[in-house]
Amino acid sequence: MQKRYLLTPGPTSVPSEVLLTMSQPIIHHRTKEYRKIFAKVNEGLKYLFQTASDVLIFSSSGTGAMEGAVSNLLSPNDRALVVKGGKFGERFAEICTAYGVEVIPVDVVWGEAVEPKEIESKLAENPDIKAVFTTLCETSTGVVNDIESIGNIVAKHSAALVVDAISGLGAMEYKPDLWHVDVTVGCSQKGLMLPPGLSFISLSEKGWKLVAESQLPKYYFSFLKARKGIGSLESPFTPAISLIIGLNEALQMIREEGIESVWRRHSRLAAAVRAAVRALRLELFAPRTAADAVTAVKVPSEIDGVLLVKKMSEKYGMTIAGGQDHLKGKIFRIATLGYADTFDVISVLAALTMTLSELGYEVELGAAVRAAEEILMK
Amino acid sequence: MQKRYLLTPGPTSVPSEVLLTMSQPIIHHRTKEYRKIFAKVNEGLKYLFQTASDVLIFSSSGTGAMEGAVSNLLSPNDRALVVKGGKFGERFAEICTAYGVEVIPVDVVWGEAVEPKEIESKLAENPDIKAVFTTLCETSTGVVNDIESIGNIVAKHSAALVVDAISGLGAMEYKPDLWHVDVTVGCSQKGLMLPPGLSFISLSEKGWKLVAESQLPKYYFSFLKARKGIGSLESPFTPAISLIIGLNEALQMIREEGIESVWRRHSRLAAAVRAAVRALRLELFAPRTAADAVTAVKVPSEIDGVLLVKKMSEKYGMTIAGGQDHLKGKIFRIATLGYADTFDVISVLAALTMTLSELGYEVELGAAVRAAEEILMK
Repeated sequence: MQKRYLLTPGPTSVPSEVLLTMSQPIIHHRTKEYRKIFAKVNEGLKYLFQTASDVLIFSSSGTGAMEGAVSNLLSPNDRALVVKGGKFGERFAEICTAYGVEVIPVDVVWGEAVEPKEIESKLAENPDIKAVFTTLCETSTGVVNDIESIGNIVAKHSAALVVDAISGLGAMEYKPDLWHVDVTVGCSQKGLMLPPGLSFISLSEKGWKLVAESQLPKYYFSFLKARKGIGSLESPFTPAISLIIGLNEALQMIREEGIESVWRRHSRLAAAVRAAVRALRLELFAPRTAADAVTAVKVPSEIDGVLLVKKMSEKYGMTIAGGQDHLKGKIFRIATLGYADTFDVISVLAALTMTLSELGYEVELGAAVRAAEEILMK
Repeated sequence: MQKRYLLTPGPTSVPSEVLLTMSQPIIHHRTKEYRKIFAKVNEGLKYLFQTASDVLIFSSSGTGAMEGAVSNLLSPNDRALVVKGGKFGERFAEICTAYGVEVIPVDVVWGEAVEPKEIESKLAENPDIKAVFTTLCETSTGVVNDIESIGNIVAKHSAALVVDAISGLGAMEYKPDLWHVDVTVGCSQKGLMLPPGLSFISLSEKGWKLVAESQLPKYYFSFLKARKGIGSLESPFTPAISLIIGLNEALQMIREEGIESVWRRHSRLAAAVRAAVRALRLELFAPRTAADAVTAVKVPSEIDGVLLVKKMSEKYGMTIAGGQDHLKGKIFRIATLGYADTFDVISVLAALTMTLSELGYEVELGAAVRAAEEILMK
């Protein structure tokens, strides 16, 4: 017998309560019974998103909602400012390009956060920019961007601010209404503790104004159709019913814990991971701007990073993530995201310690866990 | 205690085996374990689709894949022939229009199948038509179209044939490779016995040639990205993992039964429903072209059709579907689709009999079931 642990930045572990709720017999979505759940889910999502606006639901991966943010806000030949500090920032640029939107890039070294002032100066140089695309937590590098400062800057311009909050949502403080965010993108398999398959969008009034003017083609990801569905409690297309049932359960768990407590829990767990990383004489990939949703760590030069991830999975049943694209083999990522607690952190740190030792990296057994305990006891 | 029965043309009942498989802990999709399942699923889908081509998987409702068929095959200002004989034929027209594709409609009275000759003459008149869009089973009317004849006609032209087989797939004979179908659209919550959330696309070589030339924007539903994912066993975006696990189980069940047996089972069940409808002196909505996936029945003039559906659900726990759009209240639809057997048919017919009687419609108790038994015993 080997227990399996999932500590990747998506998909994340799903609580058994949620898994079992989803194994109930399927109900039809044009029924009173379903509409009651849909109404509860709509309220719960507003709480999770900390917004007074409606949160639209799509049956898709997060990328589908990212595409929706482009195709619903913009028109052909519009110009968009895109912060490219990792794989998911770059994805926004790819989507814009696919839709004939001109990308003005803000190139950020992977592992660093964007300087809000750089956005300010690009907006001043290009007053015709229609939208600014960035990420709350850049999943590929474990970097958190200062959305509050960016929001204060973008609010002074006509451009809308679009934030991919996919891996940050339900893990890190996020207040789109206070921070002047116009479009937030979220999805199910991160802080929400659900399987992949649902994505979410919330919009400010400024965002909805752009939607009204947008000329790019869309149908399945039409924000107007989805909003109409919330008003009538009738999804425009057949929803992923079992995932919605699970969503209802997960949102209740988050409400019971309280969103501030959820944020604090993630903050405490990530602080413990970071302290342990230092105790192992390893280097954080984003020391100054580390996100609480996922911690990226540099692989020491004497170690094979791909083998490290493989060995942790095969020998210890502990699935963590490696690096993506040009970071493959150079970093590994531990996500204490969603359904994670003290002993998930202790376990992954012990597995990391033993694996590093077995790969010939000099390490003091117990040191990582000791450093973590000091933080986790507080 | 009241047992619930789901006999709508999507969502359909999911077997407990499948529901429970999906409640297993989530595994990561970039692992050997997941890739093994993905490879099996790819093979199983080819069998279900009865095609030698790859079947692409998307996390979305069926409408997402329908949109993909438009955005991946066509270019702005292309012309498309669209058979509009029901809600889903009309949806293809709506999607084309949203993407700036000119629609040449083939208007068919709801409840009738398209005349293949009408497609032939429209293609002759408009040799620049790039694609012909139609449905195998039009879910809204319970009509089956003669795809084999249509395929033989379209094959003689440069246009590609796109078939929405969403509710027909895994229920009715369908041989896209033999019938010269270029693009088949399917989804999870019909014959496949799964919750909603997955959609599928298979393409012929002629279809792939159009994909190579297409200029419409796409990203999430990119067929090229999805095909690359099949080759490498790496989905381009995070797949709906729990639904894929369920898909693997459902495909195994279909393989064990054998696709021809699955078709025969649906054919037998639908024949029993049709015989019972006649025994109740009710009229089929599509007497000459009734599909085996779903049976549409005219509501007798003395009965309130909306109340009939409501009463069957509330008093008998039997969820069937009403009519959509202008057919609301005028027809009801009984789907013996997917995970359905002899006693689902018997039960729904008994519930229908009792409800009709309670609503004041003159009916001989037992007559419907007797007519069904005569067929089901064969």
